[in-house]
Amino acid sequence: MSIKHISVPAPHQGLFDFTQQVATAIRETDIQEGLCVLFVQHTSASLVIQENADPSAKKDLERWLNRLVPEGDSLYTHTLEGADDMPAHIKSVLTATSLSIPIVNGRLALGSWQGIYLWEHRHQGGQRSVVIHMSH
Amino acid sequence: MSIKHISVPAPHQGLFDFTQQVATAIRETDIQEGLCVLFVQHTSASLVIQENADPSAKKDLERWLNRLVPEGDSLYTHTLEGADDMPAHIKSVLTATSLSIPIVNGRLALGSWQGIYLWEHRHQGGQRSVVIHMSH
Amino acid sequence: MSIKHISVPAPHQGLFDFTQQVATAIRETDIQEGLCVLFVQHTSASLVIQENADPSAKKDLERWLNRLVPEGDSLYTHTLEGADDMPAHIKSVLTATSLSIPIVNGRLALGSWQGIYLWEHRHQGGQRSVVIHMSH
Repeated sequence: MSIKHISVPAPHQGLFDFTQQVATAIRETDIQEGLCVLFVQHTSASLVIQENADPSAKKDLERWLNRLVPEGDSLYTHTLEGADDMPAHIKSVLTATSLSIPIVNGRLALGSWQGIYLWEHRHQGGQRSVVIHMSH
Repeated sequence: MSIKHISVPAPHQGLFDFTQQVATAIRETDIQEGLCVLFVQHTSASLVIQENADPSAKKDLERWLNRLVPEGDSLYTHTLEGADDMPAHIKSVLTATSLSIPIVNGRLALGSWQGIYLWEHRHQGGQRSVVIHMSH
Repeated sequence: MSIKHISVPAPHQGLFDFTQQVATAIRETDIQEGLCVLFVQHTSASLVIQENADPSAKKDLERWLNRLVPEGDSLYTHTLEGADDMPAHIKSVLTATSLSIPIVNGRLALGSWQGIYLWEHRHQGGQRSVVIHMSH
């Protein structure tokens, strides 16, 4: 069993592919068959697995979710931390805080077109903390 | 490895913080570094990790999801169990049934503002069953 | 620890119950108490746990999500792979790519009404790959 803390650069709103950071963490262990669990330590960023082939899919995802959960909705009372804060919480609840991916032959058992993304929901993100738990 | 069955009081619709019940379950094991997995045994309640600082965030989440998935939608055909039943199933599918949180230094590796919530989607909830799996 | 690769038949859009395939995989191990993790290797199909009693709940879920994420939305730019492709990615992000279910007494610790479903989001699905990780 091995736990690593990584920092994912997410300077602005959007999807950031960090598959390689996770792949590197796994290579640094001796785990050939097992499980990799990712956990994001924030309530305004989330984790998703999505298509890594065509950048237009990523862009449409971002635009679609921004339309579903717009800023400035009169429903919001939680507004002290900025117009993008409450939408960020809602978006993180609709996506995922933790992901579990099997490890096979020393590698993430991702499908051909799957990449691991951190979805930053604030306009000004920064370094986001992700904890990786890897075990047999 | 240790499995515990807990009961989370959720007497009405809304988000209920049960972080302390999970923290207690972990303290009762000798696990210092590992993984905590939560699973809710219901299809009309779900699990989320959200901001535990300002109660207005919790309130806005509840109101936003109620607006997205209202009762009385003419689309519903599954209505025999009450007007809040089909919305409850949809809400549970949009959030999470299982959550995985690493354990570091004998504690949940939550971020500063993260709490663990059971989201009850029925008006009359009750005691909700959550299974906790804790391992190295 | 045991890893199995299964293929879930999902010939068309909709929810497909594959609880028995997972239950069989667990029975073929000697794990009495542990954890079962499911991971779907696609970005246009997802995993959900839902009510397995009344087929109308399944039907309403499908119709509700199709209304929330319709085909032909003018927002989409990712359209080369067909009108159902971008909606499929969005739907998979709103539901789950991985699920974790405890194993108790050699069986999945599902609630009374819970079934495990693969949600196929394309009109022409096929055989979908799911990786199962089972451990103590």
